[in-house]
Amino acid sequence: MPEQVPDNTLEREAELKDEDVSQLGLSEDTVYQIQEALREGDSDLVRQELAEMHTADMADLIEQLKPALRIELIQVASDLVDAEVYSDLDETVRDNLVEEMEPAEIAELVTDLELDDAVHVLEDLEHADQQEILRELSAEDRVIIEEGLSYEDESAGRLMQRDLIAVPEYWDIGQTIDYLRETDDLPNEFYEIFVVNPRHQPIGTIPLDKAMRSQRSVAVSDIMQREQTLIPVDMDQEEVAYLFKQYRLTSAAVVNDRGGLIGMITVDDIVDVINEEAEEDILRLGGVAEDNLFGSIIETTKTRFTWLLVNLLTAVIASLAIGMFDQAMEKVIALAVLMPIVASMGGNAGTQTLTVAVRAIATRELTSNNMTRIISKEALVATLNGSVFAVLIGLVAWGWFGDFTIGWVIAIAMVLNMFVAGIAGMVVPITLDRYEIDPAVASSVFVTTITDVIGFVAFLGIASLALL
Amino acid sequence: MPEQVPDNTLEREAELKDEDVSQLGLSEDTVYQIQEALREGDSDLVRQELAEMHTADMADLIEQLKPALRIELIQVASDLVDAEVYSDLDETVRDNLVEEMEPAEIAELVTDLELDDAVHVLEDLEHADQQEILRELSAEDRVIIEEGLSYEDESAGRLMQRDLIAVPEYWDIGQTIDYLRETDDLPNEFYEIFVVNPRHQPIGTIPLDKAMRSQRSVAVSDIMQREQTLIPVDMDQEEVAYLFKQYRLTSAAVVNDRGGLIGMITVDDIVDVINEEAEEDILRLGGVAEDNLFGSIIETTKTRFTWLLVNLLTAVIASLAIGMFDQAMEKVIALAVLMPIVASMGGNAGTQTLTVAVRAIATRELTSNNMTRIISKEALVATLNGSVFAVLIGLVAWGWFGDFTIGWVIAIAMVLNMFVAGIAGMVVPITLDRYEIDPAVASSVFVTTITDVIGFVAFLGIASLALL
Repeated sequence: MPEQVPDNTLEREAELKDEDVSQLGLSEDTVYQIQEALREGDSDLVRQELAEMHTADMADLIEQLKPALRIELIQVASDLVDAEVYSDLDETVRDNLVEEMEPAEIAELVTDLELDDAVHVLEDLEHADQQEILRELSAEDRVIIEEGLSYEDESAGRLMQRDLIAVPEYWDIGQTIDYLRETDDLPNEFYEIFVVNPRHQPIGTIPLDKAMRSQRSVAVSDIMQREQTLIPVDMDQEEVAYLFKQYRLTSAAVVNDRGGLIGMITVDDIVDVINEEAEEDILRLGGVAEDNLFGSIIETTKTRFTWLLVNLLTAVIASLAIGMFDQAMEKVIALAVLMPIVASMGGNAGTQTLTVAVRAIATRELTSNNMTRIISKEALVATLNGSVFAVLIGLVAWGWFGDFTIGWVIAIAMVLNMFVAGIAGMVVPITLDRYEIDPAVASSVFVTTITDVIGFVAFLGIASLALL
Repeated sequence: MPEQVPDNTLEREAELKDEDVSQLGLSEDTVYQIQEALREGDSDLVRQELAEMHTADMADLIEQLKPALRIELIQVASDLVDAEVYSDLDETVRDNLVEEMEPAEIAELVTDLELDDAVHVLEDLEHADQQEILRELSAEDRVIIEEGLSYEDESAGRLMQRDLIAVPEYWDIGQTIDYLRETDDLPNEFYEIFVVNPRHQPIGTIPLDKAMRSQRSVAVSDIMQREQTLIPVDMDQEEVAYLFKQYRLTSAAVVNDRGGLIGMITVDDIVDVINEEAEEDILRLGGVAEDNLFGSIIETTKTRFTWLLVNLLTAVIASLAIGMFDQAMEKVIALAVLMPIVASMGGNAGTQTLTVAVRAIATRELTSNNMTRIISKEALVATLNGSVFAVLIGLVAWGWFGDFTIGWVIAIAMVLNMFVAGIAGMVVPITLDRYEIDPAVASSVFVTTITDVIGFVAFLGIASLALL
């Protein structure tokens, strides 16, 4: 069919390309244009650009503006900034904007959002402000949102939406379809119909595609899938994300402690959770408590401080270890020149291993069943690489200072420290995980302290014995 | 309704709990039991456990077994190991298993999989082996899979499936539903119906929930959503994942360069991509080329080697910098004892900043519009923290060695190096990204080399001037 291309193809293609572009994210040029228009007070241009923008792109735009221009933009075009934009915003940016709003305005915003997004907007506010806004809501909304807020942060209860489709098992597909056609108050989007017993406990699900393929006379209980993944309302969001990934779920029922169906989680919220959790691990491994690209200078300085303080202590410990060998260094100053090499190589080999370990623990690939095997493997890998680098650095040191003893001393210290790095890089995160400390946060400081101290002590200690 | 709890609730709860557990992942005990059963040759127990297991859990189980037991398990229960298990397996483990299979067996496996999974299984094989397997396939399957393999690795073409529902715009909902009921060869799961023009170009979509709510007489063209995100078949998977995240898509149409509808990507495949991309960033930041938890010792050693070699070079550069000040250190050995502290603090502050920068570049939060603002902020944050730590370490050094000069020298070096760390931590990843080098791979080595050299040179250099 596509072989004979009619004449208007090019036109059609151009058309497709145009539609395409409007859906392919926010361009830096657009941001720049709007920024300049805001500065020049050209509100018509701003409104024109915003009118065609997707809510997710609008959130990105607001994040990239200076704080003063963000408020300017809202003032110029508050009617064009959908409630959904607020739920897509970075937490810090959203809180700053919400601070500028009246309680009644926030209440209106919250009313327009789905439960999980409404809770997101409210959860970071002060308790007194929260109460003031809740009072502005209709009784029905207030009860639902208060319940949402009552679930623990990062639990399934915070992710779920209340709107869902549940039908009794004695219905047939025809009744189900009629119910869908007649009811106005349906969720925005849904992918499966839940089947419940008289006590409103989920006993099966019908994916929408199955429902559509079935004749009207087919009984719900005949085509429903009985096997389903039920999410307890207090389950941690990381666990929920694991279940969605593992069983490729699109949506799942959330149940209370009596097994009653109280909500539904959909995969789009899980995509956010997976991103958040990966981001958390990346930042924690880099020694950053939380992403604060948009935070104030003082806040950001504070969140970085603790990690640097811990690092100062470990650096002082390493210096104390070096201090034990001051006499050896005074006699052979080459030792002071070379000593950072062994420590640095150990630190890097240790970081490689602990990164793999932290990730494998997070993805549940590293368990007590294969632990011993994988620790042995990592120790062997580190020692193999250590041997190669020992020969290399031994030759370099020998050539540099013309002293064969310095050469073999640094070589032995290298193998030793790399072996320790391989073991520590595995054992430290596994041990932290066992004691329920997040290995992404604390592994790195323990491992590099170990490789620093062993690196300095092994090199300077063996050198003291060999040279003095 | 739930206030009056009938007597059989407890029973019902126990039942729910049981169903629950079977869907909550693979327990370590189960793995241990199957491992022991395989060792003892108790194939009945193995088969019994596997019969009730989800394919995703089966893949996890196989990954956690020793290589020899993996093959043992397949021999004992090949009929219970679904084709899907292979698509869920870690690449290294899958390749090892597939190597043990005959071409005809692999061909049968490939036939049972969806296109994207079949391509996954075949893509890592040697070209000759691939050809042998393709010859075993039916002509129809062969053409489709060869086309799948012809798309670039990590492109939309590799992620998409060919099965989808497309209807002409002049149909009504009744015709659409009848078509679904009458056609056997439908995709396993789908969430929207694509509407195409006579040249098979997508012009809109109908989410299944909208279709189900509509009366049979409603025209397709009246309820279809015209705005849609079209994925060009050669788009990079990272870009595809970005679009799914940004616009909260559940599925999307894939088009060829003539705008023709050729496939569909669903969110479950995107969840895998998001995980892969996050994993890649985490590992690269940790100096690991690829995850090789299940790789052989030699392979793993090789992939770690390059990074360590680069690090050896930078460590030697730092030592060369130290070597310039050997006379100063010979006179005041306290300098050798203290010098790692400044370098280490700079390295950590730099790593914090570069982690935030790498992540912000990946999530498109850091752009040329807010770059200057964010670099200034990071430099200020690092300098603020540097000032606090300068006072701290200055006092410690003064107290330790009883020399006020050493105290203020280390304090000045600290502020200087932290300032450099803040700037380098931002500028290095931004520059790498501009030259299209992945900032996650290379930022860390550049930044720590800079902070090491500046740390040593500032401290030892100022000390030389002040003390000699």
